[in-house]
Amino acid sequence: MAARYSADDLTPVAGGGLLHRRLFLKQGLILAVAGRALAASPSRAAADDLSRPPEDPANPFWIHRTGLPFTGYGTPSKYEKFVVRNIGGNRTPAGEGVSWTPLEDLEGMITPSGLHFERHHDGIPDIDPAVHRLVIHGRVRQPLMFTVESLLRYPMRSAFLFIECGGNSNAGWHEEPIQRPLGAFHGLVSCSEWTGVPLSILLDEAGVDRIASWVIAEGADAGLLNVSLPLAKLMDDAIVALYQNGERVRPENGYPLRLIVPGWEGIVNVKWLRRLEVTDQPAMTRNETAKYTELLPSGKARMFTFVMEAKSLITSPSPGQKMYGANIYEIRGLAWSGRGRIAKIEVSADGGRSWAEAHLEQPVLPRCLTRFRAPWAWNGAPAVLKSRATDETGYVQPERDVLVKERGREGYFHYNAIVSWAVDSDGSIRHVYA
Amino acid sequence: MAARYSADDLTPVAGGGLLHRRLFLKQGLILAVAGRALAASPSRAAADDLSRPPEDPANPFWIHRTGLPFTGYGTPSKYEKFVVRNIGGNRTPAGEGVSWTPLEDLEGMITPSGLHFERHHDGIPDIDPAVHRLVIHGRVRQPLMFTVESLLRYPMRSAFLFIECGGNSNAGWHEEPIQRPLGAFHGLVSCSEWTGVPLSILLDEAGVDRIASWVIAEGADAGLLNVSLPLAKLMDDAIVALYQNGERVRPENGYPLRLIVPGWEGIVNVKWLRRLEVTDQPAMTRNETAKYTELLPSGKARMFTFVMEAKSLITSPSPGQKMYGANIYEIRGLAWSGRGRIAKIEVSADGGRSWAEAHLEQPVLPRCLTRFRAPWAWNGAPAVLKSRATDETGYVQPERDVLVKERGREGYFHYNAIVSWAVDSDGSIRHVYA
Repeated sequence: MAARYSADDLTPVAGGGLLHRRLFLKQGLILAVAGRALAASPSRAAADDLSRPPEDPANPFWIHRTGLPFTGYGTPSKYEKFVVRNIGGNRTPAGEGVSWTPLEDLEGMITPSGLHFERHHDGIPDIDPAVHRLVIHGRVRQPLMFTVESLLRYPMRSAFLFIECGGNSNAGWHEEPIQRPLGAFHGLVSCSEWTGVPLSILLDEAGVDRIASWVIAEGADAGLLNVSLPLAKLMDDAIVALYQNGERVRPENGYPLRLIVPGWEGIVNVKWLRRLEVTDQPAMTRNETAKYTELLPSGKARMFTFVMEAKSLITSPSPGQKMYGANIYEIRGLAWSGRGRIAKIEVSADGGRSWAEAHLEQPVLPRCLTRFRAPWAWNGAPAVLKSRATDETGYVQPERDVLVKERGREGYFHYNAIVSWAVDSDGSIRHVYA
Repeated sequence: MAARYSADDLTPVAGGGLLHRRLFLKQGLILAVAGRALAASPSRAAADDLSRPPEDPANPFWIHRTGLPFTGYGTPSKYEKFVVRNIGGNRTPAGEGVSWTPLEDLEGMITPSGLHFERHHDGIPDIDPAVHRLVIHGRVRQPLMFTVESLLRYPMRSAFLFIECGGNSNAGWHEEPIQRPLGAFHGLVSCSEWTGVPLSILLDEAGVDRIASWVIAEGADAGLLNVSLPLAKLMDDAIVALYQNGERVRPENGYPLRLIVPGWEGIVNVKWLRRLEVTDQPAMTRNETAKYTELLPSGKARMFTFVMEAKSLITSPSPGQKMYGANIYEIRGLAWSGRGRIAKIEVSADGGRSWAEAHLEQPVLPRCLTRFRAPWAWNGAPAVLKSRATDETGYVQPERDVLVKERGREGYFHYNAIVSWAVDSDGSIRHVYA
């Protein structure tokens, strides 16, 4: 079968060697991307060696004896035990801190539930679902209390959604570019299929007062974490989630009930949900005043900045990985927007002077991670890689200097600037401001 | 806020109390579905009780002390430890058998990787990815050998796909309807996001002979399981998968490499893939002759029946669950077709005399599980529930008597008839042929 590409396919469409995204939709190509450990290109053995598989790999112990038995609930291979959440927390109290999703080790769109990022203020409550209750009260016709079992009987809806911590990527505000693996810098974002009861059904059953406009949501952790949310958003698309990626929500993600507020910052997706108080004003809780409120250069402060704006990251190559010489690589990345679908991803290999459009994996879903891919003929010279997201509202992910100018240097939350990786001629990759 | 439904919404659209699927798209309804343990309807407490949460559930120990610490890789709640694969296997050799996905305990579309069904002939090989190789040889210009690391550099594609064992639901051929929980009857089907290298790229690199038409695929388990596959299908959409649901493929699902053949029976999705031999005829291996070949009433035999035809199941209510009296319930189920997208799901509450169209959760993807939902006003009298799938090719899931007439009684594989659950007036649910 003849190779199905032409010289045109290898003509760059942007500086630094970026090729047209159709390249990987064709067949007949010999290509390669940056891997973790760097073995040689595909070994080519003579045909007679291949009539039986080569000595060592062909006769490993596992083909000579019956393998391991069945398990009720499977776990990853022991050879993948390095793929874990990166934990940053205080020793006292235990469980106060964050864990990051190792985005650089993952592929596709879904985050395995066991690797979903975490932000806990008081550890993971060990909740017995037979005891747990959800209460809806305040400005309602009829206060209601739900058991978990009763909620399982309500009509449900599923949606693939990202959750991103409002503080994700905050090292981007630092004066100097932080040098860390991707997940330990940007890994407070994860993606799951969430299934549960549309909150509008429960609020309608309680009968919300005409004057009501806010809801205080409270979790059942030891700090009773609480936040204020506009009633209109909760009526529109919030879910009281009972299932995550097919099974019941994991303890560290809110078992048995998590409030899912699509596209909005992680903290308002309240875990271990126990109470919803309908009100006519926000409660001005710690997590919307002392935190998640930011001083702007004008002297005014941003508050209730719920929506996570469009953002993208190149996951491969990324810091800690290594290129292995001039070759054609697949640039891989993730993008998302709290306002809807990703419309376009562009990548640059010359520090933003020129851009090429990336291929988006289907389905592209609203408020969900989208995987993108772009072919790149690297010539071995130093290069600066960037990716830039545009969402369906037309919003374009900003360059870092634009974001810093707008938001000043007091910021901590909602950092979504374009990220730059410098590829050096030795194949190493660094985070740079460029 | 006023309830937003009218008397029309509660007018049945089919016998036995099936309501229009738009019902659950509206808000303002008090509804319920069949749960596992059957607590009462939502408790209603007086408002003064709710100004602080009620005594017991409001003051559990977990809100009075810091919770559990972070973990690198999470696991489900201890309260969900009953949600496991149902294992059926021989003691000798260990690891010969199957495990079923507990479909009745799951929601949404994704199957958690730890609960993906399994069929092993010789246990789970404990493969070191640094030693494992994939060889492509036979009728090719240039035999090739790939390390796992080298495959990680090739361009990748992701797809949400079901895998169903060709022997799934085979108890349907029995003379008497089997009485088992849903998953232990139909649970040899699961759904994941698979990511890996399109096989066409690797075959093109090897340079397939013009005369070649088949490929023998072999796994690295102790039995070196092998099957023959038409080259054209593999060139069309097969993937050498390295990732499942975001992370590297689990050991019991083929770590480090699994051949994914979208929509085709489970066995040809060869796990622990080690060898692809390009040929001009099938090898007539054990698993395509002694097994997966079936005598028809005509005396002829069906062979190479790769495609899994359209099928649907009602997951709730289902045997082992219990109704709790006349009420509005959400009928929930799963459907899929190896030929593409599900176009329509109809449900019946009167044993197939009349049908109502179900709501399909978005996105509806080709060769992927689709979750369906339908509202049902059960009047408490005996009823027979059925679901019927139609795929985008126009194929309609057959009634059992039609399937048995066509395929005879020697069949074992590819059972996809309409499934019937009898709901008795005491709320219990039985599998019936109706």
